[in-house]
Amino acid sequence: MNVRWLDDRIDYDGSQLRAHWILEQTGIVGDAMVAFRGACAVARAEIADLADIDGPGIAGDDMVHFVAEWFSHPDLLLATHRQRLLAAQAGEVLRELSPTATVRRHGDDLFVGAGKLSISVATASPVSALLHFAVNATPGGAPVATATLAQLAVEPTTFAERLLALAASEQQSIAVARAKVRSKGEWRR
Amino acid sequence: MNVRWLDDRIDYDGSQLRAHWILEQTGIVGDAMVAFRGACAVARAEIADLADIDGPGIAGDDMVHFVAEWFSHPDLLLATHRQRLLAAQAGEVLRELSPTATVRRHGDDLFVGAGKLSISVATASPVSALLHFAVNATPGGAPVATATLAQLAVEPTTFAERLLALAASEQQSIAVARAKVRSKGEWRR
Amino acid sequence: MNVRWLDDRIDYDGSQLRAHWILEQTGIVGDAMVAFRGACAVARAEIADLADIDGPGIAGDDMVHFVAEWFSHPDLLLATHRQRLLAAQAGEVLRELSPTATVRRHGDDLFVGAGKLSISVATASPVSALLHFAVNATPGGAPVATATLAQLAVEPTTFAERLLALAASEQQSIAVARAKVRSKGEWRR
Amino acid sequence: MNVRWLDDRIDYDGSQLRAHWILEQTGIVGDAMVAFRGACAVARAEIADLADIDGPGIAGDDMVHFVAEWFSHPDLLLATHRQRLLAAQAGEVLRELSPTATVRRHGDDLFVGAGKLSISVATASPVSALLHFAVNATPGGAPVATATLAQLAVEPTTFAERLLALAASEQQSIAVARAKVRSKGEWRR
Amino acid sequence: MNVRWLDDRIDYDGSQLRAHWILEQTGIVGDAMVAFRGACAVARAEIADLADIDGPGIAGDDMVHFVAEWFSHPDLLLATHRQRLLAAQAGEVLRELSPTATVRRHGDDLFVGAGKLSISVATASPVSALLHFAVNATPGGAPVATATLAQLAVEPTTFAERLLALAASEQQSIAVARAKVRSKGEWRR
Amino acid sequence: MNVRWLDDRIDYDGSQLRAHWILEQTGIVGDAMVAFRGACAVARAEIADLADIDGPGIAGDDMVHFVAEWFSHPDLLLATHRQRLLAAQAGEVLRELSPTATVRRHGDDLFVGAGKLSISVATASPVSALLHFAVNATPGGAPVATATLAQLAVEPTTFAERLLALAASEQQSIAVARAKVRSKGEWRR
Repeated sequence: MNVRWLDDRIDYDGSQLRAHWILEQTGIVGDAMVAFRGACAVARAEIADLADIDGPGIAGDDMVHFVAEWFSHPDLLLATHRQRLLAAQAGEVLRELSPTATVRRHGDDLFVGAGKLSISVATASPVSALLHFAVNATPGGAPVATATLAQLAVEPTTFAERLLALAASEQQSIAVARAKVRSKGEWRR
Repeated sequence: MNVRWLDDRIDYDGSQLRAHWILEQTGIVGDAMVAFRGACAVARAEIADLADIDGPGIAGDDMVHFVAEWFSHPDLLLATHRQRLLAAQAGEVLRELSPTATVRRHGDDLFVGAGKLSISVATASPVSALLHFAVNATPGGAPVATATLAQLAVEPTTFAERLLALAASEQQSIAVARAKVRSKGEWRR
Repeated sequence: MNVRWLDDRIDYDGSQLRAHWILEQTGIVGDAMVAFRGACAVARAEIADLADIDGPGIAGDDMVHFVAEWFSHPDLLLATHRQRLLAAQAGEVLRELSPTATVRRHGDDLFVGAGKLSISVATASPVSALLHFAVNATPGGAPVATATLAQLAVEPTTFAERLLALAASEQQSIAVARAKVRSKGEWRR
Repeated sequence: MNVRWLDDRIDYDGSQLRAHWILEQTGIVGDAMVAFRGACAVARAEIADLADIDGPGIAGDDMVHFVAEWFSHPDLLLATHRQRLLAAQAGEVLRELSPTATVRRHGDDLFVGAGKLSISVATASPVSALLHFAVNATPGGAPVATATLAQLAVEPTTFAERLLALAASEQQSIAVARAKVRSKGEWRR
Repeated sequence: MNVRWLDDRIDYDGSQLRAHWILEQTGIVGDAMVAFRGACAVARAEIADLADIDGPGIAGDDMVHFVAEWFSHPDLLLATHRQRLLAAQAGEVLRELSPTATVRRHGDDLFVGAGKLSISVATASPVSALLHFAVNATPGGAPVATATLAQLAVEPTTFAERLLALAASEQQSIAVARAKVRSKGEWRR
Repeated sequence: MNVRWLDDRIDYDGSQLRAHWILEQTGIVGDAMVAFRGACAVARAEIADLADIDGPGIAGDDMVHFVAEWFSHPDLLLATHRQRLLAAQAGEVLRELSPTATVRRHGDDLFVGAGKLSISVATASPVSALLHFAVNATPGGAPVATATLAQLAVEPTTFAERLLALAASEQQSIAVARAKVRSKGEWRR
């Protein structure tokens, strides 16, 4: 999985969570995850999670966004597992960068105290699996009580680059682990 | 996924990581994870991870073991992702039960300082995917420097029951999340 | 698979055979089958079976409808097998409720004498497999010679609830059966 | 799916339910179902259904056996659906050949009154899916109360040839149906 | 896989590369490949390969087109392998028909000297995998330097019928080969 | 896919066509293809292709062997397509290295005149797909009329390194092609 931090500020409106957005934006072909900083205001037509359609909206003034697309294994159930693992990885990176912080993962969300630090969705296009994960960089603009990287004294770009690197290396180590095991047989023989 | 704590002490020798061991042991049919306490000494012929075959051995005098088997989606790549997620979940449970501890996940392993707290493997049988994950309860018997639940002042059964519950509820929430998203289209239209 | 009888009359126009209609209509998340009573007049744009597009139309004044959606295993070939099995199950329920009737299954259709009792289609959405199956409750409105539950003296709600229960229990028993077999090897060894 | 009635009597001991037995026995390559007449006494080591291992045994003096192997779509969940559909088809054939009989299907089993008419299992080999289905031709040798084709006045070869033909034609019609549907979209757009 | 040469001239504009075009055009149900002669001018909205969207256009005055659709195994990665194999087969047919020609395959393209002989794309619909492959019959209309069947003294219909026959027979022989092998075990035991 | 030429002579007896042989032999983890020179005499128990079990034997005194193992997409039907493509690639490499030779591919075999140049099989292990492909380097030891690289004046190592490079680059270009296409919709809308 190729990963890249994009220096340009990009405001996320949900249209980025479409097939080949990463390819068109960066030229990267194949399984990839990119990250960038920008506001968030997801247009209703672009909302993938039906639980959010009639909700308070998905928004934030300043977030660090991660968008991933997988072609090699586009199964949606697998993508949902990858999404949970990414949330766990994000918590691990935050604990490294802010050792005194108490970051809790609940499914695909991270919380600091009662504040919601992140938003996320995993879905499918006709040719790929897609993921959006974003954490609040600084406060403002969200329809719910939030936590932010600023509050954890975590620099957004540092966080993004660490998480991109961890996500890439763990995908690689998963592929290695899968390729190094031999099968097992039946208990009763 | 059905989960169950088994009160009887069971010494794990790797033969438990076979198709239908859970069924024969407990009568539970279908996707399941069970946990139990016992020693660990994996017979060479039962080692699934080829990286371990010529290693120092897989052993411990007193461990909490988790064995899972999945029939619904037996893909090995998915199982490897579930394994990583279980390791992350175990770290989260430990941070709840031992808030001052510093537990780090590295792939499918957990560490406390330089001590290795856990062992794990995910593999496949001809009809299912299989997982073993175990953490040291008390010291002794391991061929490498270890950490233990005792050192974290975590009671083994409490840990096991919390992790079983978390693994089950997250599998359920993953199925819900996968079923609640609508697909996305192409970036360029 | 969750099943539910919906008391409200719903006229089926084919738009109900879309991803997440069951979720939006009932709040049920995940694999599900619902049934309801209502007229049937499928809009041409909603017809899934291409064999029907230039046909006489898909219509009936009073039918018992079954709509199912599967997320866990969304493969279309599997869904088509489930559709055939549902038609067989429907025949079995009718033989129980109307022991003297002669109901014949031909593929995904049921017949009583020369009268067509049912209509059906299985298809896919981008995130799920979908099924519609409906039987005529009382005569009228169909473009072909029909048979009806009334003619078999079968009460529509009773039929629907029996079939929903059978479909759910058989899905469960299939999952159990799949999880209880061990694999077999080669003939020549 | 190629089908063939084998004239030679073959006693079934479970070893026939292995990969490529049909190929070696008949020369038929690829997806196939064959039928033959013979006794049944499944060796314990050949039992695929774990529910039967400690049971009364799988036996009968005179049965009509169906053995199928699928390479094109070897998924075990699909094979289990095919198994259920075959049991339903067998019931349909019996109702045609013996219109006054009351044959009930319960999962993959057929019953006439309290007598068990059939036995069945679906499983997987490393390269295929496998199915055995057999009905008692004449009484004798079974460890449970049975029903027989003789009791229904159904001639075994006629039954076998009809069921083979129906299974083949329905597999063909399922492939056609799967290939003739267009997909459906989201309910909320 | 059914194959058929279509006598009518059909100008290809990319809309033919859609689910069920072959069915609607020819009545052939299921896996199929058809070939026909006609001009080529792919409308931008119909371009499947994103690499071509901003390119010089996909056009030719006189080409031999092959359109295939697979329902049985609609995986896109498999379809891409089939596409490469078809390009290789086309080269083999050309070497038979024009023994002195030097036809080189580069991925899914064929070249004669510096002239590009063919165009191709493999993609997916929601219910199938799709392929377009076309070779220039006579010069004219292409935005790049081309080679043609005329230059190789190959008669277009002869070429098409040979390639259709080869593609069909190789698909059949692949199915046979896949069904005739037994699995292998682990190196270390 | 990692590829590597192995300098050591290795006599192939079929046991090399097992899961993780490449890993144990070379340390390469994951999808890989290796090549080496050596005799060939496949033990009957190691024969994967059932068509060969009762045949004249699989042997040669001096061959160039290719062994591949794929973990990422272990489907056997896909592996069989890769096998055919490899045979086509081998023909292409030979035409480059020996432009005046007439090498014909017939399925997974290559011929020069009436001489059989190659042998091949693709199969599955419980965790991977496996392939063996070998061409005769010099004459001798084969039970059928053969052709050899020597007769084509092709240096074995050069041939092997070219084919390994082509196989690797085409796998990469297939992954790229699969990731660059957008899906297509229905013909009738």
